[in-house]
Amino acid sequence: MRQDPARLRFEIVAREGSARAGILHTPHGPVETPAFVPLATRGSVKGLSSADLASLGFEMILGNTYHLMLAPGEELLAELGGMHGFAGWDRALISDSGGFQVFSLAHGGVADEIKGRRGGRSSHGSVLSIGEDGVAFRSYLDGSPQLLTPQRSMAVQAAIGADIALVFDECTPFHADFDYTAASTERTHRWLDRCLRWHGEHGPSDQAVYGIVQGGVYPELRARSVERVAAAAVDGIAIGGTLGRDKPQMRAVLAATLPQLPVAAPRHLLGIGEPDDLIDSIGLGIETFDCAVPTRLGRHGVALGPDPERRYRFEVAKARYARDPAPLVDGCPCPTCAGHSRAYLRHLAKIGEITAARLLTIHNLAYTKALVEGARAAIVGGRFAAYAGAIRAGETPWQATAPVPS
Amino acid sequence: MRQDPARLRFEIVAREGSARAGILHTPHGPVETPAFVPLATRGSVKGLSSADLASLGFEMILGNTYHLMLAPGEELLAELGGMHGFAGWDRALISDSGGFQVFSLAHGGVADEIKGRRGGRSSHGSVLSIGEDGVAFRSYLDGSPQLLTPQRSMAVQAAIGADIALVFDECTPFHADFDYTAASTERTHRWLDRCLRWHGEHGPSDQAVYGIVQGGVYPELRARSVERVAAAAVDGIAIGGTLGRDKPQMRAVLAATLPQLPVAAPRHLLGIGEPDDLIDSIGLGIETFDCAVPTRLGRHGVALGPDPERRYRFEVAKARYARDPAPLVDGCPCPTCAGHSRAYLRHLAKIGEITAARLLTIHNLAYTKALVEGARAAIVGGRFAAYAGAIRAGETPWQATAPVPS
Repeated sequence: MRQDPARLRFEIVAREGSARAGILHTPHGPVETPAFVPLATRGSVKGLSSADLASLGFEMILGNTYHLMLAPGEELLAELGGMHGFAGWDRALISDSGGFQVFSLAHGGVADEIKGRRGGRSSHGSVLSIGEDGVAFRSYLDGSPQLLTPQRSMAVQAAIGADIALVFDECTPFHADFDYTAASTERTHRWLDRCLRWHGEHGPSDQAVYGIVQGGVYPELRARSVERVAAAAVDGIAIGGTLGRDKPQMRAVLAATLPQLPVAAPRHLLGIGEPDDLIDSIGLGIETFDCAVPTRLGRHGVALGPDPERRYRFEVAKARYARDPAPLVDGCPCPTCAGHSRAYLRHLAKIGEITAARLLTIHNLAYTKALVEGARAAIVGGRFAAYAGAIRAGETPWQATAPVPS
Repeated sequence: MRQDPARLRFEIVAREGSARAGILHTPHGPVETPAFVPLATRGSVKGLSSADLASLGFEMILGNTYHLMLAPGEELLAELGGMHGFAGWDRALISDSGGFQVFSLAHGGVADEIKGRRGGRSSHGSVLSIGEDGVAFRSYLDGSPQLLTPQRSMAVQAAIGADIALVFDECTPFHADFDYTAASTERTHRWLDRCLRWHGEHGPSDQAVYGIVQGGVYPELRARSVERVAAAAVDGIAIGGTLGRDKPQMRAVLAATLPQLPVAAPRHLLGIGEPDDLIDSIGLGIETFDCAVPTRLGRHGVALGPDPERRYRFEVAKARYARDPAPLVDGCPCPTCAGHSRAYLRHLAKIGEITAARLLTIHNLAYTKALVEGARAAIVGGRFAAYAGAIRAGETPWQATAPVPS
């Protein structure tokens, strides 16, 4: 990897075991880590404005290359000041490479895997071919043929103007066997080179680039990928691809992979954001996370909370909350909990009002942020192990960070 | 009518011709009039929170009896502090009677009239019978049989805890003939008596009640209705029912009806809220307006603006705005225009993001509010006629209120 303060400076301010608290210094301001990064998928976090995200205190959001190249398109984005200018967001921005989405079209997404479907066509579009040069597919918006190559991915990300771009990669599915995963990972490494070459010649000089470690669930492929990515001129490292069949396997893959990474590299974990996964991954040394879970759950009437036995979530529309005057989570400082009862939110969620989607999205983002911020404060204070234990035992972030009574 | 400061005190602070500027003093604070009242139909203005409405400066919102009696229901509302407590709204509140909605189920709504459908069943439910006692219908939520009577309407509105309740009435459709309208209006007058009797015995002592003038497009029926309503112990008067086939007929009905009303009575015009209608109706002496137009247009990608030739509106998703860096309306001080270009809003509206629905709803409400506030300031300054002329000529509210350069 390279270290170039003109693009990105990563400062580690505290450690506890493998966990790190730090600051990513980007051209659009600092991002205190660990940090959760909300998904502004198609240019907005669904239901929220950029001003909402700033007022919730988020320092970085993520834009999706796949969606933004189809609409509004990279030319228009470049013309209108990138996503910062377009969406009125003046803090840090990371963009993904589009690889996850186009390969989900080909391999089927996580939901397809769970339901036993393989390689089915998604309702969102269809893949025409996968080759050494990239992926050809049809736009889900207008059916137009599209080609996403390493070069185009970087060009779109240059137009987006992200502070941190990700290299184009194949996100291998859980059902991929060793041989497929090995060949795919090697191609991802060749794409890494193409991305860096394009970026060196055409990319914004202040845009950082993260490499992506693939290799599926196979330790030797992950190890080879770490070696390859760490040797390249990247500014940080993302962990991508399937992390296993279940949470224990995901933790095993991460536990085996992370110690091999350069200590100085900021690490991003792609697509992970449930409360227990965040706590465990922070403990293993991850800096930043993006994930659809908090916002998608919010749009579907599900609120995040502290109860591990209910997977840190509950359905707000249930009858048991019909007369409940309490906020979603006691003590939660978010604007949703400050001004709305479970009874009111239950009513709005049950009848499908979009106000419910917005208010639950706000709570879930704020709750996730509080959880991660609590972890950061705990690492700085040398009590992360206790904090993680308290979260796993069902305490809220603010309970888990409160001083222990003597 | 009656005048009882414990319920409602209406203070007229300025007049110009028939137009009045005033203040409605309600138990939940003052409402400067003329005023536009956003629809919190089922307990929220779709996409917005009560805090959003307060921060936009609205002093009164409207809750729908028909929707709120079906969910969450009057018992739950009463238990949770009425709609003020339930929705976290601490300013003035008006509730409608449910009459408009249940009779729309029977007669077909405005959209049905335009399309030539009559008496069809709405997709939202079905009417079982209409009689002297009220209307029996099926809930669109669970199919349960419901009976909406004058008494139940007032009981629901007592549970809602509105500062201003409306009596139960039949909203006659445009296609109703003289005989039907005459008989319906007489029944509405009998329902007025029932509502006032119930309210006198069981209603909140600080809740004001507005009577509703019906009579369709027939001047003699309107005159009789005015006489009947004005003679009753009401705190204000609403104008309901069909106002004609088109805008000229609507203005004719209003122009014939309003001079017959007691001067001291605050007047509410039901269901009217397009910019030109607001200006004309304010000129004829209306205080308050509720209407779905600004919010419904916003959810469907249509923004309000100053151009009379385009019906004061434009479709944001049109290709012509794809690269337009300007706000929706130049000089508009609303949070949407302050932070978002037409290009960005066009992108979000075109792909159907709910952020677009929210941001356009905010603009349309703020624009409507600015238009009506400008009218108020103009009446106070004795220049309403000029203001109305400027709006009709295509100026924005802030252009129309700016001092004329000498």
